[in-house]
Amino acid sequence: MNSCGLFSEDVGSFFRSPVREIFKKVDLNSIYSFAGGYPSAETFPLEEIRQTISEVIDKYGAKAFQYGATQGVMELREAVAERYGVPVERVQITSSSQQGIDVCTRVLVDPGDVILTSSPSYLGALQSFRSYRADIRGVRHHNDLEAYRLAYEEELSRIREEGKKVKFLYMIPDFQNPSGESLTLQERRMLVALAREHGFLIVEDSPYRELRYEGEHIPTMYSLAPDHVIHLGSFSKIFAPGFRLGWAIAHPEILDKIYVCKQSLDLCPPILDQYVAAEFLRSGRLDENLKKSIDLYRGKRDLLLDQLGKHMPAGVTWTHPEGGLFLFLTMPEGFDAVKFYDEALEAGVAYVAGEFFHPDGSGKNTMRMNFSFMSGQRIIEGVELLAKLLSRLPSCAE
Amino acid sequence: MNSCGLFSEDVGSFFRSPVREIFKKVDLNSIYSFAGGYPSAETFPLEEIRQTISEVIDKYGAKAFQYGATQGVMELREAVAERYGVPVERVQITSSSQQGIDVCTRVLVDPGDVILTSSPSYLGALQSFRSYRADIRGVRHHNDLEAYRLAYEEELSRIREEGKKVKFLYMIPDFQNPSGESLTLQERRMLVALAREHGFLIVEDSPYRELRYEGEHIPTMYSLAPDHVIHLGSFSKIFAPGFRLGWAIAHPEILDKIYVCKQSLDLCPPILDQYVAAEFLRSGRLDENLKKSIDLYRGKRDLLLDQLGKHMPAGVTWTHPEGGLFLFLTMPEGFDAVKFYDEALEAGVAYVAGEFFHPDGSGKNTMRMNFSFMSGQRIIEGVELLAKLLSRLPSCAE
Repeated sequence: MNSCGLFSEDVGSFFRSPVREIFKKVDLNSIYSFAGGYPSAETFPLEEIRQTISEVIDKYGAKAFQYGATQGVMELREAVAERYGVPVERVQITSSSQQGIDVCTRVLVDPGDVILTSSPSYLGALQSFRSYRADIRGVRHHNDLEAYRLAYEEELSRIREEGKKVKFLYMIPDFQNPSGESLTLQERRMLVALAREHGFLIVEDSPYRELRYEGEHIPTMYSLAPDHVIHLGSFSKIFAPGFRLGWAIAHPEILDKIYVCKQSLDLCPPILDQYVAAEFLRSGRLDENLKKSIDLYRGKRDLLLDQLGKHMPAGVTWTHPEGGLFLFLTMPEGFDAVKFYDEALEAGVAYVAGEFFHPDGSGKNTMRMNFSFMSGQRIIEGVELLAKLLSRLPSCAE
Repeated sequence: MNSCGLFSEDVGSFFRSPVREIFKKVDLNSIYSFAGGYPSAETFPLEEIRQTISEVIDKYGAKAFQYGATQGVMELREAVAERYGVPVERVQITSSSQQGIDVCTRVLVDPGDVILTSSPSYLGALQSFRSYRADIRGVRHHNDLEAYRLAYEEELSRIREEGKKVKFLYMIPDFQNPSGESLTLQERRMLVALAREHGFLIVEDSPYRELRYEGEHIPTMYSLAPDHVIHLGSFSKIFAPGFRLGWAIAHPEILDKIYVCKQSLDLCPPILDQYVAAEFLRSGRLDENLKKSIDLYRGKRDLLLDQLGKHMPAGVTWTHPEGGLFLFLTMPEGFDAVKFYDEALEAGVAYVAGEFFHPDGSGKNTMRMNFSFMSGQRIIEGVELLAKLLSRLPSCAE
């Protein structure tokens, strides 16, 4: 086969997810894995799911296995609409929130168009954006609101001078992947105001929002500007990722394009899975289970923070997330988390190098650590091992 | 919201599936529907599925609800590889064969590239091709092999003169959608030879292949040229469409691009659904059930052919499919199936106008009829009603 000229131009911009590549090679249970964004297997309510599937088969019969509407089954759209207080006409069920990200990019972005993101930002989103040959501009967070606003204004000026068009700002306002940090209400308001002023949309990716371990919920960006924000949600972290179900909430004109695109992408989301998710939501089982997950993850987060404090060499700092699945480590300047990765994996511990989350390839001395997947005992052993390896490095030695 | 300049250029080429739009507006069970490609609800083995889900939960536990490999779970890849006699390295599980079509187009086609198809061809494929702004060239079937070859050669010459590039030929060789007809072995060999000679790929879409009601299986195009053909399969017609599972079989270099693309599309196919399909295949339950479906559909096909013969006015002709879910009707010249559609639906009978399946918008006097979905009694009543309506038209009156 001669592959010269075979593939589309987009393929030249594809890049492999380093996270998914790790999982191809390594059995996650054979190492200390801080790498993935996997929920804990303990949080999947197997017996309740078995029971609910049986109820769905009794209730819906063959309908649970037939083709369904592209927008998603009405029972699930209604359950999502009710839970999040939005009109059902604004709800599209997606086959995972990753699909939500991808479809938004497909219907909004032409090659060369600008997508603004935080820096760092979610790897799977960057992967999708690049695959459409978008021009990704990452903006770093500043604790000072005015400095943060100015950083965006400066990037927007540069983009304007280059004659380019910003299509949307991609944000994970709650317990961000990878940093674990959240945007304050003032920051959300500031970004929404920028979007209105400069005429771009916001894609608000919100898979971790309901996993809050302390503090008060902050309004979604969607609630601040329902016609300027596409809100993406997911059942992966609050129910089970294997179902591959999420949702998009948006202005009907945008949602209509997402809907028509989804027709040719995959016709409709998986049907039985949707009915099961709808029953789980409506029966209250999802909330019961979520409460347990939150308690479990709060304990794991506290344990990881505690262990990092006990074992990490001086010069290593980390974020203190109020929710979600991740925290973000910063090592001393000169440390290279990509280079160090093979040694760590060889020793039996995995993380994701922070560089992959930075659109400009910076952040070499950072790494993302997940605390949801492993048991407490393995978190303890994993941190000890990682800290020992880091302590041996000249750049991290005290 | 000001939508001027909001959407990507691709969106300008989106078109709505007339089939899916029908289903949005009409309850399929309230009319005589020859419209969709829905399997009969009778063919879904509800109790066996319930039982298999329970076995999968026992066997795999939390793994059935966790994230999984982008290529699909190994158990299902192996079961597909074994069933179709291909190496497992060549098997990618897709979230429906519609996704297979879409991803092939994404990784192979740039705007303006040519995709060759039969004319008529599958609407969902045309929808996907158009959404990537492909230049679709439909070639009509000729019963004479040499005339058929020449029709392709002529189109290829035109394309060469225009300085355009053919990326692939899209074909449904078995019981084609919409015509119900199959390519002979000689035709398959001729098309494969053309692909080799002119350096394009073939995307062989094969959702109906196992639904053969008479005659002998003809080798797949993939088996004739495994390095030049991407073979797409689906569980939708042999198991249940609600699972949204299919597969792509291809040269590893092509499969690798499909794999990386799928990472950013939706990470992985639904997990529980994959384990259930794998168990169904391996346990022999799928084949047992398929045998029943084939008997059921053979009866429905025979019934529809019989009823058409009894009731249709002179001047109406139709295909005699040896398998699949559809046959194709041709009405006298001057008949317009799109215009007639509202009247038919008003009277309570639905079909899909053949025009939608023709890349060049021809075929106005044709329609597709499905025979899998309705019961025998409703097929009888539906044909009577449709024939009565058609007989009233001047163009169809005897």
